Amino acid sequence: MFRPEIKVLDCSIRDGGLMNDWKFDKALVKDVFDSLARAGVDYVELGYRADKKQYSPKEFGPWRFCDEADLREVAYECGAKVSVMCDVGRTDYDDFLPASESIVKLVRVATYVKEIDKAIHLGQHVKSLGYQVSVNIMAASHALEPDLDEALDELAATNFDVVYLVDSFGYFYSEQIHYLAEKYLTRLPGKQVGIHCHNNQQLAFANTIEGIIKGINYVDGSVFGIGRASGNCTLELLLGFLKNPKFDIRPVLDLIEKYFINLKKELRWGYEIPYAITGILNKHPRAAMAFMKGVHGNSFSEFYGELVDVDDI
Amino acid sequence: MFRPEIKVLDCSIRDGGLMNDWKFDKALVKDVFDSLARAGVDYVELGYRADKKQYSPKEFGPWRFCDEADLREVAYECGAKVSVMCDVGRTDYDDFLPASESIVKLVRVATYVKEIDKAIHLGQHVKSLGYQVSVNIMAASHALEPDLDEALDELAATNFDVVYLVDSFGYFYSEQIHYLAEKYLTRLPGKQVGIHCHNNQQLAFANTIEGIIKGINYVDGSVFGIGRASGNCTLELLLGFLKNPKFDIRPVLDLIEKYFINLKKELRWGYEIPYAITGILNKHPRAAMAFMKGVHGNSFSEFYGELVDVDDI
Repeated sequence: MFRPEIKVLDCSIRDGGLMNDWKFDKALVKDVFDSLARAGVDYVELGYRADKKQYSPKEFGPWRFCDEADLREVAYECGAKVSVMCDVGRTDYDDFLPASESIVKLVRVATYVKEIDKAIHLGQHVKSLGYQVSVNIMAASHALEPDLDEALDELAATNFDVVYLVDSFGYFYSEQIHYLAEKYLTRLPGKQVGIHCHNNQQLAFANTIEGIIKGINYVDGSVFGIGRASGNCTLELLLGFLKNPKFDIRPVLDLIEKYFINLKKELRWGYEIPYAITGILNKHPRAAMAFMKGVHGNSFSEFYGELVDVDDI
Repeated sequence: MFRPEIKVLDCSIRDGGLMNDWKFDKALVKDVFDSLARAGVDYVELGYRADKKQYSPKEFGPWRFCDEADLREVAYECGAKVSVMCDVGRTDYDDFLPASESIVKLVRVATYVKEIDKAIHLGQHVKSLGYQVSVNIMAASHALEPDLDEALDELAATNFDVVYLVDSFGYFYSEQIHYLAEKYLTRLPGKQVGIHCHNNQQLAFANTIEGIIKGINYVDGSVFGIGRASGNCTLELLLGFLKNPKFDIRPVLDLIEKYFINLKKELRWGYEIPYAITGILNKHPRAAMAFMKGVHGNSFSEFYGELVDVDDI
């Protein structure tokens, strides 16, 4: 697939940080950024910009907050632009410099459908400072259709740049991706649509391709699939699929060999049965993550049985 | 997806045996068969029927040969039918009893396109003994289109039951699966079409679903994805996708917990970068398997570079 409009965003540090409280060494993050720049990646998301009044820097690594000074230690101005994510309700508006004074180019606002108005308010603040803005609607597999439609219509009326379809629970099959991609593209004329998938059912890469086939141009990947629970679409497979000659898979392979094989043994993202079970059942992975830490003492099939019987998420 | 015609074939022991020379304990195979029968799986493929004049029983486990007596020790007559595979050129015609005297119900003949006439000859022999017969055309991603078309036309003229689309190298994306599934279904009127995928690019499950959407009814899975190199479509995800109430995922989850998590640590199938590289490049996984064993001393990116530069497979 070669469509020059396609932009690849790497979320290794941001989504991977959900597995280690963003305690990645600066040397590693610096190497990740530089390698991804050489690989031709368009955006590198280096973390969340969380409110320090809500989250203590004593408990979390620097990529939970993405201070400008920390970002400038690991990133530089180049073809790979820096992205940060912020959550509705967990962000201090005053933490954003004017874009002209920041190395950050893209700010992605993560929200549930029910908080779309707060997300738009935050996005408008960030947009007014000169940043590119994306709104990422999480947990689309739990959204009621009229609510989702209304949220998309509200976003269509903004001047934001991108809206992301997010399969937070790794639940969707290709047919749902097709349906939702068409919906997002139809309801958001003039905007770019993005896709961010989780790999609970080994479908993150496949569903990202299906999104691309339908016209989605912003695609998230992560090195060796690092990310919460089962992780994300792997960047290396994505670059193997995209035929734009600007992409080079080799710096990504080097990163995997140098850091991510050992990180995976430590943090245990990827295809694991508890994550597969929450994906199949369209549940938040938190129960599976507890299971993986040994908190849950039962067998896989007991875990499955409990989740089938539970209505809440 | 609920289409009553869909038949699930588990190839854990047969394809997984490629990773341990078919040296699975009989107790494990017995438990696998019984659990898969309880899970509602339609066919359980217990190995190859290889010619003992070519392969020594001293070097290989019993599932390389699938003697009738060995099969009867681990399997029983029930809803899950026993399948064996045989390779063109590696099979002794005299090793097949009449079907009425065998616990085997389905024989799958594995062939490359260039040996299709030998495969048909072998298939006719087996069919004349009363077995269901499938021909599995391996390495479809390396077949020249006119040769593949001719092979399909020859198969269309036989009385075989099933023809399999096989992505031996884990190379295909959904668009190729759609194209080939339509071709197979169109050129093989009245026959069932099957699909067997490898997971080099984490697309085995996704591509199996795409085959099902196009009308393929015979689908291969394996417990926890066990199989050569990156392995196969995982049976547990497949059963999660298929909505036929006869399927029960729990006996499969129990098998994974009891045996396959440890087996995976030992045999190392699954998503590994060397397998991903051969998948992306449409190469046989043998170089990747050597790399995994440490025979290849170079880095991932050197391995990638070498394969890009090599024309043969």
